[in-house]
Amino acid sequence: MPFVHPVTVRFFEVDLQRVVFNMWYLGWLDDAMTAYLADRGFPYDVMTGADWDVQLVHTDIDWHAGATFGDQLAVEVTTDRLGTTSLTLAFRVLRGDEVIATATTVYVVVGTDGTGKRPLPDALRSALSAAGA
Amino acid sequence: MPFVHPVTVRFFEVDLQRVVFNMWYLGWLDDAMTAYLADRGFPYDVMTGADWDVQLVHTDIDWHAGATFGDQLAVEVTTDRLGTTSLTLAFRVLRGDEVIATATTVYVVVGTDGTGKRPLPDALRSALSAAGA
Amino acid sequence: MPFVHPVTVRFFEVDLQRVVFNMWYLGWLDDAMTAYLADRGFPYDVMTGADWDVQLVHTDIDWHAGATFGDQLAVEVTTDRLGTTSLTLAFRVLRGDEVIATATTVYVVVGTDGTGKRPLPDALRSALSAAGA
Amino acid sequence: MPFVHPVTVRFFEVDLQRVVFNMWYLGWLDDAMTAYLADRGFPYDVMTGADWDVQLVHTDIDWHAGATFGDQLAVEVTTDRLGTTSLTLAFRVLRGDEVIATATTVYVVVGTDGTGKRPLPDALRSALSAAGA
Repeated sequence: MPFVHPVTVRFFEVDLQRVVFNMWYLGWLDDAMTAYLADRGFPYDVMTGADWDVQLVHTDIDWHAGATFGDQLAVEVTTDRLGTTSLTLAFRVLRGDEVIATATTVYVVVGTDGTGKRPLPDALRSALSAAGA
Repeated sequence: MPFVHPVTVRFFEVDLQRVVFNMWYLGWLDDAMTAYLADRGFPYDVMTGADWDVQLVHTDIDWHAGATFGDQLAVEVTTDRLGTTSLTLAFRVLRGDEVIATATTVYVVVGTDGTGKRPLPDALRSALSAAGA
Repeated sequence: MPFVHPVTVRFFEVDLQRVVFNMWYLGWLDDAMTAYLADRGFPYDVMTGADWDVQLVHTDIDWHAGATFGDQLAVEVTTDRLGTTSLTLAFRVLRGDEVIATATTVYVVVGTDGTGKRPLPDALRSALSAAGA
Repeated sequence: MPFVHPVTVRFFEVDLQRVVFNMWYLGWLDDAMTAYLADRGFPYDVMTGADWDVQLVHTDIDWHAGATFGDQLAVEVTTDRLGTTSLTLAFRVLRGDEVIATATTVYVVVGTDGTGKRPLPDALRSALSAAGA
């Protein structure tokens, strides 16, 4: 069963077109990623305490419907691909059974000391592999 | 010569990783799109006054470097493709000669009366074709 | 017992000073106000369905400490004053027992038809009076 | 003549009430403060290079009218009061001659080394005194 992060649409996220402005979805994806990694054993302070962090290098997102103020949404997160230094997550934003957006994000693992990319830590790889697709 | 929309990085756009948080780029792309369409003869009130609007259905974005507080950036906009009901724009976010992000966005033209998608207005098609790549 | 709206600090709300950027507190106050009015019988669609809405005319806020990523906060809401056409709420933003911010907001009741200010509806006045301080 | 920081209202700043959502004003005040201090000789990197920074401890703001998408606004900044460790600025947000909001913000000067409040640097005091009201 995929990991799910709940989102309630806030008043100010809705724009003149009466649907959530696009950029807020990226905020939700970030929250959902953080919650997913924490759930898999890697909360933010554990990652940075081990001197690494993840950095977003790519996002693609497709919108199928608009969300409105007060909507209760579910952001589903799954691991899509584990590369040598990169990690790809897949997301579905759901309102009940309706898929209102789908997205893919790619992160690289970087040292917090500014030395740049590094291989995915083995423990992270194991945790996300065990998580299933 | 492509259309350029200037952006100055704001204090609150920079996050704990000391670079601009990803979602703000989507805000910049939206501003740049609006300015580009206005420059081509379609400011927002002209579009909505003619009972149509554009609605974002897809974005993909790649980050090549981070931007920091006070950076003076240029968002370059070009028309990538004109479909029957959709419009694809291509963007480059530049800091001087350095490309820090590239993106593509797809919009559909919709009626402001809630009747959904409609063909690209001829005048918009002409204005964007004339604009060159 | 005062009404409490929970807030979890999001990654992008934290700025270069490593604390939540000030404007996000106003987003939290708005969320807390909406939740408080809903709890007292006036969810947003009930208000607007009755052709009125509340509009913010004043905010003052004092910060006593900074909040950081992942902090679990509680926004306490109480009715401070009910005027003829205005409504004053008082807020405390708490992290456990620590008060990190206090705020007051004043709203006027307006018609959704653009006719401007109107007296506080009696039902709203009763609901908030009964709520106690 | 007071210092003026220009603001153009962005699409996503406008909410369901068809006016700019309140929190964005605090973003504008922050931008205007930064630009004002830079204009007076204290750009952000000069302040932090001298191991101090300013931290917001109070804001009060009154709204007199709403701003809408595309509005060209001017944020006027003046020094209101220079205390021992604090600095008070006064703001007017103008649309042409119309005052749409007025605000006061209080900052304390803090060391960037985490040692807390410190007296206003003499050079800052002189620069802001010379600036006039």
